[in-house]
Amino acid sequence: MNEINISKAIIRRLPRYYRYLEELKSEGIERISSGELSERMKVTASQIRQDLNHFGGFGQQGYGYKVNYLYEEIGKILGLDRVNRLILIGAGNLGTALANYTNYRNRGFMIEAIFDRDPSKVGTRVHDIPVYSIDELEAYLSENSIDIATITIPKEEAVKVAKRLTDAGIRAIWNFAHTDLPVPDDVAVENVHLSESLMSLSYKLKNM
Amino acid sequence: MNEINISKAIIRRLPRYYRYLEELKSEGIERISSGELSERMKVTASQIRQDLNHFGGFGQQGYGYKVNYLYEEIGKILGLDRVNRLILIGAGNLGTALANYTNYRNRGFMIEAIFDRDPSKVGTRVHDIPVYSIDELEAYLSENSIDIATITIPKEEAVKVAKRLTDAGIRAIWNFAHTDLPVPDDVAVENVHLSESLMSLSYKLKNM
Repeated sequence: MNEINISKAIIRRLPRYYRYLEELKSEGIERISSGELSERMKVTASQIRQDLNHFGGFGQQGYGYKVNYLYEEIGKILGLDRVNRLILIGAGNLGTALANYTNYRNRGFMIEAIFDRDPSKVGTRVHDIPVYSIDELEAYLSENSIDIATITIPKEEAVKVAKRLTDAGIRAIWNFAHTDLPVPDDVAVENVHLSESLMSLSYKLKNM
Repeated sequence: MNEINISKAIIRRLPRYYRYLEELKSEGIERISSGELSERMKVTASQIRQDLNHFGGFGQQGYGYKVNYLYEEIGKILGLDRVNRLILIGAGNLGTALANYTNYRNRGFMIEAIFDRDPSKVGTRVHDIPVYSIDELEAYLSENSIDIATITIPKEEAVKVAKRLTDAGIRAIWNFAHTDLPVPDDVAVENVHLSESLMSLSYKLKNM
């Protein structure tokens, strides 16, 4: 299998396939036809065949996809076959909510530490994850191998912290701040702009 | 201006324009050229001209866009010129974090009530929003005009509650549960699938 041949459009759809394959696995389903998967995912069977045939695992007609095989292969493409170590910036409600997604661990994501500037939170644990002072950020990153930093603080602070993170060598940021972060080109950013999502819903509702 | 002529691709970009225009407004900037906006938004000036010329507000060469006018026009397209009334299902960390986005109010979103099944939470207030028992959901919806329901509970419960919400007449769901909701075709859904977003980041990091 050659990853280079997989288009960006398919890549964007992979996390959703991964989620459905995970669900099938948890239901003990070992094989599924493109027709059945189509019904579950509300995607045409031909789209599914076009997408998943890149990954092999499709036997003779009538056999269906091997759920576990596809799950593993897609996981490898997404980089989930290795452990991604995360830190959270911000121990507020959103940071706490994200720390609580314990099922990340099953998908290869480990939250190692939380950083906050509130002295009353420093030294505590959130869902068993230690909370450190934001002043300790650089020292921590020099001693620990961290792949992804999650930012859940207001935008003015977020821009400053993003600079500190990338200066300290962080190459992936999961950004929940209400702003686009100015980061170097070799840093991956995934934005979760909640208010934009809500505006899109408002548009859909208005035009329903 | 004819809304029907605006393509879906532009619609998808509107919330981001709206966010930048809001920022310009808050900085007291009344006019901006496509070149300056291009630099801020990291989008080509020609893309900006193509997108924003649909909305008028572009005077003679060298004048630039009228920030407030564009902001208002885009807001109307997005349905932000009316108040959208929201309820939250789930008073956990994520629900609390969402309730805390007080700046929603400036954009026409009002969170009216939170519903939870935990008796210790019922009767309390979260960021001054009352928490009701989930058993009171239908009675509340029959007496209050609600536009959008936000779901922040685990997926099995989420599917059941989505059914109750749509049966009670809700036509827009902002879904944070780790599943796709089976809703009627006339119900708008906007999903925020956090784990899929994190997987996309993992992919980007791996392929940086």
